[in-house]
Amino acid sequence: MMTLDINQLPDPETINAARLRIRDWINHTPVVTCSSIDQMVGAELFFKCENFQKVGAFKFRGAVNAVFSLTPEVGFRGVATHSSGNHAQALALAARCHGFPSYIVMPDNAPSVKKQAVLGYGARITECEPTLAAREETLARVVSETGATFIHPYNDYRIIAGQATAACELLEKAPDLDIIITPVGGGGLLSGTALATRYFSPSVRVMAAEPAGADDAYRSLEQGRILPSVKPQTIADGLLTSLGDLTFPIIRDHVDCIVRVEEKTIVKAMRLLWERAKLVVEPSAAVALAALFEKPSIFNGLRVGLILSGGNVDLEKLPWLKDEY
Amino acid sequence: MMTLDINQLPDPETINAARLRIRDWINHTPVVTCSSIDQMVGAELFFKCENFQKVGAFKFRGAVNAVFSLTPEVGFRGVATHSSGNHAQALALAARCHGFPSYIVMPDNAPSVKKQAVLGYGARITECEPTLAAREETLARVVSETGATFIHPYNDYRIIAGQATAACELLEKAPDLDIIITPVGGGGLLSGTALATRYFSPSVRVMAAEPAGADDAYRSLEQGRILPSVKPQTIADGLLTSLGDLTFPIIRDHVDCIVRVEEKTIVKAMRLLWERAKLVVEPSAAVALAALFEKPSIFNGLRVGLILSGGNVDLEKLPWLKDEY
Repeated sequence: MMTLDINQLPDPETINAARLRIRDWINHTPVVTCSSIDQMVGAELFFKCENFQKVGAFKFRGAVNAVFSLTPEVGFRGVATHSSGNHAQALALAARCHGFPSYIVMPDNAPSVKKQAVLGYGARITECEPTLAAREETLARVVSETGATFIHPYNDYRIIAGQATAACELLEKAPDLDIIITPVGGGGLLSGTALATRYFSPSVRVMAAEPAGADDAYRSLEQGRILPSVKPQTIADGLLTSLGDLTFPIIRDHVDCIVRVEEKTIVKAMRLLWERAKLVVEPSAAVALAALFEKPSIFNGLRVGLILSGGNVDLEKLPWLKDEY
Repeated sequence: MMTLDINQLPDPETINAARLRIRDWINHTPVVTCSSIDQMVGAELFFKCENFQKVGAFKFRGAVNAVFSLTPEVGFRGVATHSSGNHAQALALAARCHGFPSYIVMPDNAPSVKKQAVLGYGARITECEPTLAAREETLARVVSETGATFIHPYNDYRIIAGQATAACELLEKAPDLDIIITPVGGGGLLSGTALATRYFSPSVRVMAAEPAGADDAYRSLEQGRILPSVKPQTIADGLLTSLGDLTFPIIRDHVDCIVRVEEKTIVKAMRLLWERAKLVVEPSAAVALAALFEKPSIFNGLRVGLILSGGNVDLEKLPWLKDEY
């Protein structure tokens, strides 16, 4: 296995190496079609079902690639991150697959079910106050005490190369796509998708979808610099973060456009994916389909690949059962 | 294409002919795995996702095979059935695929959403009182007026041969299964699965799962004759019907055992399929997984293929949101 230079933009060989590295550990998720949704949007859609990925989200690809890239001497000191979401579970399970310890810093108000999930994967949790400063400070302390390696949820080339593998599989299973579209939060999935598409299917346009209430990536592209996500308001709770200094340039250089979507459209798209495609997806995953409802003229008559990023939802609290939607 | 003798038990060639006949019209649904459910049940599970089939249920396979077996002279007079469930939609869409008219007899208290779905596939609906006598009488009138061919939802060898194709695909994608298990209602899916397995993978055991509150198939096997389904009480509304004189002998001769499952276990299995496997399935489909919770010792350590029969549910009325479960 080639060694990974973690300071260099992933090239085609790096992404191919990531595919090999994670091959026996991930789910090779299916690509699903749904003729009734196709009819509604007037396009031919190919859903890459990362909701079926281990831990229920694409995040496991990047986490496995990052963890499995560590040398044993480094890895046995552990990996660490701060997250209450899918990355925490992904990192914990990836570490356990390799026999490495994992340390997760979580805000003390994180839902108990999320703590239980991470504990179930064998991680050690350190709680902190629910502020970014407290999270970073606590993480720094955990890292200095344990010697663990910090694995950022998206601003890390190992993570980006791992996330790129979902697009590789989609492009192979659904040839001749016109467009590939993913949601964008911190930009790990999007920048991986953009690189994979440029390298392996350069004629395919790369687009992203972002909640209008958390449109920092859209504004960052417009301004040509990273703008932070300020008081984001969206049901798509996986897309609250800002771009990083590694993901931003890739997105700037290789993404054709970002479509902003309204909350009601996200819920509508999510419900259609459940009702028609029979897929349990989280709101963040539905954002990609929502883009086709917001801007139908972009997609009309085309073959569109969508990465459904995850499926971790609380089945007791479905958005269409609330009055506001 | 070989002609189908509709009065003869489907042999291997008949099932292979059905596969060819429906190949370009059905969804070749994926087989999904879920390691967290595997851990819970102590077996290796392979879910054949017929919830992703067109119209959201395996029923489309049999309907296409039956409709496409008709000669044009017969077919252009139309096809007819009485059903308010998945078979009605499946038959309507299958007929439309071939340009044949379809006539569906439905009880006048059927949910409006079901009527709309059937109308959306181009069927003509005739309403009747919600009794079996009224349904059969109305159907007989529609058939005599139109010259349409009655296609029974399960007691028809063309239907059985079509349903058999789901097991064929599962056995190919998940080799070396120890057991294949399906839910049983009227027995169309189960008898097709039993024949396909006996013909193409004879070492695989064939089992069925049935709600304890609608256990007429279990009792019929025990008694050696068809017992009707009397006042069935189950959330699995696709499994209320009784075996037919064509499905019963196949099941008697080729099914190893039927496991009865409790309502609470059905809801538990359904919720797990949504929460862990990210699959929207209807209660009837969850019955197969429920069997593994009811009788874990049968399945422990084995490779088990489960046919998830469908995914048509009302997203406003999920069973785990009710107090009774």
